[in-house]
Amino acid sequence: MSEAAQTLDGWYCLHDFRTMDWTLWKSISSDERQTAIYEYQGLLEKWNVTQNEKKGSHALYSIVGQKADFMMMFLRPTMEELNQMEMEFNKSKLAEFTIPVHSYVSVVELSNYLPAGENPYENPQVLARLYPILPKSKYVCFYPMDKRRQGNDNWYMLPMEERRQLMRSHGMIGRQYAGKVKQIISGSVGFDDYEWGVTLFSDDVLQFKKLVYEMRFDEVSARYGEFGSFFVGHHLSEENLYQFLHVN
Amino acid sequence: MSEAAQTLDGWYCLHDFRTMDWTLWKSISSDERQTAIYEYQGLLEKWNVTQNEKKGSHALYSIVGQKADFMMMFLRPTMEELNQMEMEFNKSKLAEFTIPVHSYVSVVELSNYLPAGENPYENPQVLARLYPILPKSKYVCFYPMDKRRQGNDNWYMLPMEERRQLMRSHGMIGRQYAGKVKQIISGSVGFDDYEWGVTLFSDDVLQFKKLVYEMRFDEVSARYGEFGSFFVGHHLSEENLYQFLHVN
Amino acid sequence: MSEAAQTLDGWYCLHDFRTMDWTLWKSISSDERQTAIYEYQGLLEKWNVTQNEKKGSHALYSIVGQKADFMMMFLRPTMEELNQMEMEFNKSKLAEFTIPVHSYVSVVELSNYLPAGENPYENPQVLARLYPILPKSKYVCFYPMDKRRQGNDNWYMLPMEERRQLMRSHGMIGRQYAGKVKQIISGSVGFDDYEWGVTLFSDDVLQFKKLVYEMRFDEVSARYGEFGSFFVGHHLSEENLYQFLHVN
Amino acid sequence: MSEAAQTLDGWYCLHDFRTMDWTLWKSISSDERQTAIYEYQGLLEKWNVTQNEKKGSHALYSIVGQKADFMMMFLRPTMEELNQMEMEFNKSKLAEFTIPVHSYVSVVELSNYLPAGENPYENPQVLARLYPILPKSKYVCFYPMDKRRQGNDNWYMLPMEERRQLMRSHGMIGRQYAGKVKQIISGSVGFDDYEWGVTLFSDDVLQFKKLVYEMRFDEVSARYGEFGSFFVGHHLSEENLYQFLHVN
Amino acid sequence: MSEAAQTLDGWYCLHDFRTMDWTLWKSISSDERQTAIYEYQGLLEKWNVTQNEKKGSHALYSIVGQKADFMMMFLRPTMEELNQMEMEFNKSKLAEFTIPVHSYVSVVELSNYLPAGENPYENPQVLARLYPILPKSKYVCFYPMDKRRQGNDNWYMLPMEERRQLMRSHGMIGRQYAGKVKQIISGSVGFDDYEWGVTLFSDDVLQFKKLVYEMRFDEVSARYGEFGSFFVGHHLSEENLYQFLHVN
Repeated sequence: MSEAAQTLDGWYCLHDFRTMDWTLWKSISSDERQTAIYEYQGLLEKWNVTQNEKKGSHALYSIVGQKADFMMMFLRPTMEELNQMEMEFNKSKLAEFTIPVHSYVSVVELSNYLPAGENPYENPQVLARLYPILPKSKYVCFYPMDKRRQGNDNWYMLPMEERRQLMRSHGMIGRQYAGKVKQIISGSVGFDDYEWGVTLFSDDVLQFKKLVYEMRFDEVSARYGEFGSFFVGHHLSEENLYQFLHVN
Repeated sequence: MSEAAQTLDGWYCLHDFRTMDWTLWKSISSDERQTAIYEYQGLLEKWNVTQNEKKGSHALYSIVGQKADFMMMFLRPTMEELNQMEMEFNKSKLAEFTIPVHSYVSVVELSNYLPAGENPYENPQVLARLYPILPKSKYVCFYPMDKRRQGNDNWYMLPMEERRQLMRSHGMIGRQYAGKVKQIISGSVGFDDYEWGVTLFSDDVLQFKKLVYEMRFDEVSARYGEFGSFFVGHHLSEENLYQFLHVN
Repeated sequence: MSEAAQTLDGWYCLHDFRTMDWTLWKSISSDERQTAIYEYQGLLEKWNVTQNEKKGSHALYSIVGQKADFMMMFLRPTMEELNQMEMEFNKSKLAEFTIPVHSYVSVVELSNYLPAGENPYENPQVLARLYPILPKSKYVCFYPMDKRRQGNDNWYMLPMEERRQLMRSHGMIGRQYAGKVKQIISGSVGFDDYEWGVTLFSDDVLQFKKLVYEMRFDEVSARYGEFGSFFVGHHLSEENLYQFLHVN
Repeated sequence: MSEAAQTLDGWYCLHDFRTMDWTLWKSISSDERQTAIYEYQGLLEKWNVTQNEKKGSHALYSIVGQKADFMMMFLRPTMEELNQMEMEFNKSKLAEFTIPVHSYVSVVELSNYLPAGENPYENPQVLARLYPILPKSKYVCFYPMDKRRQGNDNWYMLPMEERRQLMRSHGMIGRQYAGKVKQIISGSVGFDDYEWGVTLFSDDVLQFKKLVYEMRFDEVSARYGEFGSFFVGHHLSEENLYQFLHVN
Repeated sequence: MSEAAQTLDGWYCLHDFRTMDWTLWKSISSDERQTAIYEYQGLLEKWNVTQNEKKGSHALYSIVGQKADFMMMFLRPTMEELNQMEMEFNKSKLAEFTIPVHSYVSVVELSNYLPAGENPYENPQVLARLYPILPKSKYVCFYPMDKRRQGNDNWYMLPMEERRQLMRSHGMIGRQYAGKVKQIISGSVGFDDYEWGVTLFSDDVLQFKKLVYEMRFDEVSARYGEFGSFFVGHHLSEENLYQFLHVN
């Protein structure tokens, strides 16, 4: 048996993807639409309060292509709060005009392939990464992934030391994108269908492609990465949101 | 031909996952909703009587993410009773507002990779595990799994003794979570699409991730485990249920 | 090129799985429901006549879990008659309240991995198996399967003699369940997506799990078996059927 | 790089599978149904003219099982004409009562694994196979397939000469079914999701199973064949069609 | 770690596939249809202005078979503009009669497996390929693809020099089709589910099959290519579009 990597775990995370039923949304009166928007604003204000108190974070993104129209990303200290938020949205007026198309349940995670001797939970940089306020970067990219267990390419059968070295060189690539791409890794073993969710943030959408492509040549991805669906979108500030929901 | 492991089999088990059609649920009068809830309460009371008589067990869970809104887990002495319960729910008023999204049919199972000489059905601990009253733990995790039969990684071609040793070390990991995670393994060969269902219960949802992740480095999972979809949720007591169903 | 196994082929077979639209079924008047049931009774009577004349067979089963609510299994001398029966049901009133969810097209088959020299079609036991009247056993199990063609595990590249020996030892397991489980193997190469359909009948549903699990350790399944979805259900006699369709 | 096989290409081909919405079809008046049928008869007459002029061919089949209720098979000299026919049907009244469930786009193809020196397009037998009038055989079977490219079983890495020999012995099997089964191979590389479509015609539906099963033991299929869904049905002459569409 | 290929990246690209709800489209008055068409003409005119200013390009295609009825292909300098166009269409009247069935998000890409020493962005031919005005060719073919990472067939583990040589011989095949087939490769790593999208244009639809089939025998495709769904269609000029949308 290989030694399992230790992880540090932060806020619970829900990625919630929706399409709009535009025909239905257009079919109601503009007053009714306004009522639905007001109610949703109320939720956003409540979520903003939580975020200002550093008890969670959230952000909205418009998604490109037909996989979804928008994505809500939620971070909260407990899984129950995530479920509560999801339920509150599901019961709202606006939700009647959305179709759930994908979601992902995970927890913000740092892989602790680091030398021993330090208590990571006392490290402010570690804490900032485990309990992150979502950045206002212009673009977002989300995908889930597994480490492969297939024939000779079985990550989980590698000795700890080999995994540590592979991850170190893998991390080097990420570091070259510091300042250009911010990433949140969230663990989902036992919570959802892949082992991790990866959420990338950048003001230059091309950096997502460059980063993921460059990593694909690294052994960790080349031999051991299995990837799910990729979603790309751009940040919906509250103003953008009203434009997004505006119809004639 | 390898020798097949003997199994001990207890109550039959149905995991029944549903989403709510909230728009439809909100569209009816609060009186109609109350009627649907009363009828469902009647079912719950009947199921409670059965549970109090130790002739079965059941529990409700709210599921996080879009895979489902809630899950009903049923245990009964016969497959026919499970089908009866399912049918009774399907014909109820509340069911009109739910959309079936997943289910799993299995039977509570203990793998008998143990030394011979004892009649396990005389062992009260064994009986308590075969006919379990579902715990009131705060969180639940469910996933189905297979043992792999692929190239050199073929569980079913291993000699009994090797399987026994692998399972023993696998069981060691589980034992480290005693008191933190309770598990019910149910066999589904011949009943559903995977070979087993695994249902985990805990008051700390993070323990699901820790347990499943740690096990993934053990050869039984690393080389031989194939996993289906993971569902995570939290327990719906009867009070929580009314809050769950409450809409304005 | 390997020598192909010879097969004996009997009646054509259609497994037809449906869910009920209970909401719609409940929404009509009880008179209308009665009309739909009367019409269906007419079909059943016609099918009973055919069965009494040994010109085919049929049976109904309630299916456990969400994959289906019920399954109709039809056997007929020609593919055209199967299509006719299916069409007749599809145009019936009752069909308006069902949603087709799965079907399987095949022909009852006996694999002739037997020594030469006998004309199997003169053997009354063989004929009884090729043109079977479906048993009234309490439970049914259905699954489709392929023989694997993958890397070193390629059934179709094995020499005839090796396949014959493997099948003989595989058959030994089945024989241990004689009296407990009855099976109908139907071939579907060229007719549907897997190579065979397996339908098991038993008064003890646990025997399905025991049989399929024990076989999985046999090389024929362990190395060469690829399985599709499993369906389990219990027999709907005509009385059970009216209870099944009864709603308030 | 292996040398690519040369192909001869004939008429473009569309297989168009539909289910009927019988509930909707029954819900309209018999006059309205008759109007829809008249309009469809008009299309059939137009298609018959084209066929009589040898500028294409078409046929209708009833499909057994739930995958489809009927299949229209169209052959035309250009892809544009196929699209035109499809569009014409889609805009027709009858189409409002059908649900598209599968289609396949290809071009009639002959693999030219033959010795050089002859201009195949001058060969009347070749021309008859490239521009075939669809036979009136009682039964049809359709499936798509790929040649495998997987580990050591990679068809496209084999030398031309080895492929030629394998195909020759494969063709021998087909020739044993001459007079019993007629086949049309159509190429779909670049047009649809598999590399070929295979359409078989016979007056004895069992011959489809025998042929495909026997071929599966031949190395071309055993090691290199990947198969999609199989559809089986029987020919709908114009009289059968009106019976097919008849409801009370 | 292998050295990653450098890419040149041009306009962002959205392939947007739709089916028409012909029943609904026919159900409205011809005035209403005309209104929807006028509004869509307005979008086309706006897009034409952009194209005339060389700030993007777009084209419409009718798709053969049931996968889609038509495809809109959009090229724009930013991902945000693509999302904007998509949104504008989604909120339009015509969109109410379409069902989104597939989309693909990518960026026009040139693989830079070329010798160093030149600044490709100063090369007018390179610029014309990165920012292409879509050709008016009669036919289009679209498919997504990955480079395989499986056992011994792992593209991303090959040394740069070997990949460069393989791609060079692969490119030779393409060059034989110069004048017959024009291709646009777009990268989608980090944007969508495959690594590349390939869009081919030709006045002779058979050339798509010839090109893709011939390439399949080349090691780059034979050992390393994984292909998604193929879509084939023909160009919808504005006149064709009105014919396409015309119903009685």
